[in-house]
Amino acid sequence: MKFREVLDNIKIYEAGKPIELVVREFGIDPKDVVKLASNENPKGVSPKVSKAIVDNASKAFLYPDDSMFELKDGLAKKFDVKSENIIIGAGSDQVLDFISRVILEPNDKVLMSAVTFAMYEVYARQMGAEIIRTKNYKHIVDEFIEEYQKHKPKIVYICTPNNPTGDATTKDDVLAIINAIDKDTMIVVDGAYMEYAIAKDEKYRVTPNDLIGFENVIYLGTFSKAYGLGGMRVGYGIANNTIITALHKMRPPFNITTLSLVAGIEALKDEQFVDSSIELHRQEITRYEEFAKDNNFDYIDSYTNFITYLFNDDMSSTKISNALLKKGVIIRDLASYGMNAIRITVGTEKQNSRLFKILKESIN
Amino acid sequence: MKFREVLDNIKIYEAGKPIELVVREFGIDPKDVVKLASNENPKGVSPKVSKAIVDNASKAFLYPDDSMFELKDGLAKKFDVKSENIIIGAGSDQVLDFISRVILEPNDKVLMSAVTFAMYEVYARQMGAEIIRTKNYKHIVDEFIEEYQKHKPKIVYICTPNNPTGDATTKDDVLAIINAIDKDTMIVVDGAYMEYAIAKDEKYRVTPNDLIGFENVIYLGTFSKAYGLGGMRVGYGIANNTIITALHKMRPPFNITTLSLVAGIEALKDEQFVDSSIELHRQEITRYEEFAKDNNFDYIDSYTNFITYLFNDDMSSTKISNALLKKGVIIRDLASYGMNAIRITVGTEKQNSRLFKILKESIN
Repeated sequence: MKFREVLDNIKIYEAGKPIELVVREFGIDPKDVVKLASNENPKGVSPKVSKAIVDNASKAFLYPDDSMFELKDGLAKKFDVKSENIIIGAGSDQVLDFISRVILEPNDKVLMSAVTFAMYEVYARQMGAEIIRTKNYKHIVDEFIEEYQKHKPKIVYICTPNNPTGDATTKDDVLAIINAIDKDTMIVVDGAYMEYAIAKDEKYRVTPNDLIGFENVIYLGTFSKAYGLGGMRVGYGIANNTIITALHKMRPPFNITTLSLVAGIEALKDEQFVDSSIELHRQEITRYEEFAKDNNFDYIDSYTNFITYLFNDDMSSTKISNALLKKGVIIRDLASYGMNAIRITVGTEKQNSRLFKILKESIN
Repeated sequence: MKFREVLDNIKIYEAGKPIELVVREFGIDPKDVVKLASNENPKGVSPKVSKAIVDNASKAFLYPDDSMFELKDGLAKKFDVKSENIIIGAGSDQVLDFISRVILEPNDKVLMSAVTFAMYEVYARQMGAEIIRTKNYKHIVDEFIEEYQKHKPKIVYICTPNNPTGDATTKDDVLAIINAIDKDTMIVVDGAYMEYAIAKDEKYRVTPNDLIGFENVIYLGTFSKAYGLGGMRVGYGIANNTIITALHKMRPPFNITTLSLVAGIEALKDEQFVDSSIELHRQEITRYEEFAKDNNFDYIDSYTNFITYLFNDDMSSTKISNALLKKGVIIRDLASYGMNAIRITVGTEKQNSRLFKILKESIN
């Protein structure tokens, strides 16, 4: 069998290690595993959503309403847009895939930050595109404009707040980048963690409505983080009709599950859960900032539900990550992103206390 | 915005109409809607699977084990293959997508039956491929070999039992087609409805193990039909390591949900549910055969959980489908497949009785 040449350039995305794997590999009791690696919501699932899943479990044999009428209607009301401006994906991840597939031809270029969400690269490489990165992980306007003019990429990714670094780009800066780019380049504004940034500082608030007037911009959001539905795989893209219609040509039918659809619809009705998730996060993240200061290492000021610790040369992020893993604490080593750093999801009070204890042991 | 030219040739797949749509459009009480359009399992979900979903609803915030260790292990044992020979998709549908994406370049050809599963064409067109079809909807060995030699397609699809027609191809004929095709053409044996064919006649039994020795063949199966999990989107491909490794390069992380993974694992432990589903089906399908004979129209002998009624020129499948729809009975019109025919999922005794009553009214 001969496979396509593009496959030679595809790295397989390394997912955060699941609890099951740590249980299998190190024989640790599942109850003692602390997973702070995948930016899941430490408050878990909204009880209302959980109840809706339970109530609908017996419908698992039925395909979902493929028009996703009610979910789109809920999102349209939340964001003050029309349902026809929305496409639903199996996570915003899948919308990223659709975007690559409607635009990229082999050897096209895409532009993104030095350190950003890994799947931008994966989906672009699947289409045979070339990856251009800015020098900094922060989205610096001049740097984006300079690289854009030099390379004329077909897609520009703005991840705000940025993952896996945790920094954010102001609305003014996002608009400055958009306004400097020609209309035949697609700009993706990925707001997967936007709820956390907005809660911290209003000047980082970027909404679909701020962007929908641009013919070449799409906003991405997700239910995986603040809405506590990482395991249900529901995300969305919001843009003008022309973009959404094109993306639908790449959308397979029934691309989210019947229970994911129910969960998304119900989650939109429980904004109080989102607020309480953010409240918990705001309390706990200060402990992470203090821990870093107390132990003399740096961190990136976070606009997300995780924090990135930066280590000096006398410490190795990989050694530390492995030491934590053996004790049942899963975090994300950023060595594969070229950083001597670790990304830690801010968990519950109890999870965080355990993390501090084990991390303290590992660095001393 | 300029989109890729391949988009011009993509038809959007028309999913079976959901109950919600009939409720919205015709104001029918959801309890009175009979949906026999999407080949869902009329026995619903296995109670054991339903319980597992309920028990795990509160884990919806957690990403699934992306290695899918336990599900692959269960499938490996069931089919007597190795876990590394298995890839999991969001429905076998998604595995079809991966196959297209690892093989097809623009203007490559793919070969399939005259009337077969619509997504083969959609995924091939997304890659810019050209569709070649045999003359008959049945998979006739000589016809497949002739078209293969004429067009040298990169992928050959064998859908057995075939959807939306319901006929099947014997194991001997499947092997005859495979043996006549060069090793640089991928052959997809799609057994989405295989459980029903096997129950009817052993000579149609094709297993992954019959095919795994071929370097260019992949077997597809699904939990959507006999296993009663259409809404959970879980399917699989089984082939040699080289093929599976290539497909994994196109698999996005977390491509099934946390609850889908739980459901699939549990479904494999409840083969009794599958047996009872097939038993119900075998009882009820004879009523469909008798109804056709009593009303003087033809049907295709079915090896699946649905039956296809063939109409003469004095009857219109589209008119009949629309008449049924207005009375809350959803079936599948095959006009878009070039057939004056309807496909009806064999439902519960009560659903089928209602179908017969309304259909009788509509054809007289």
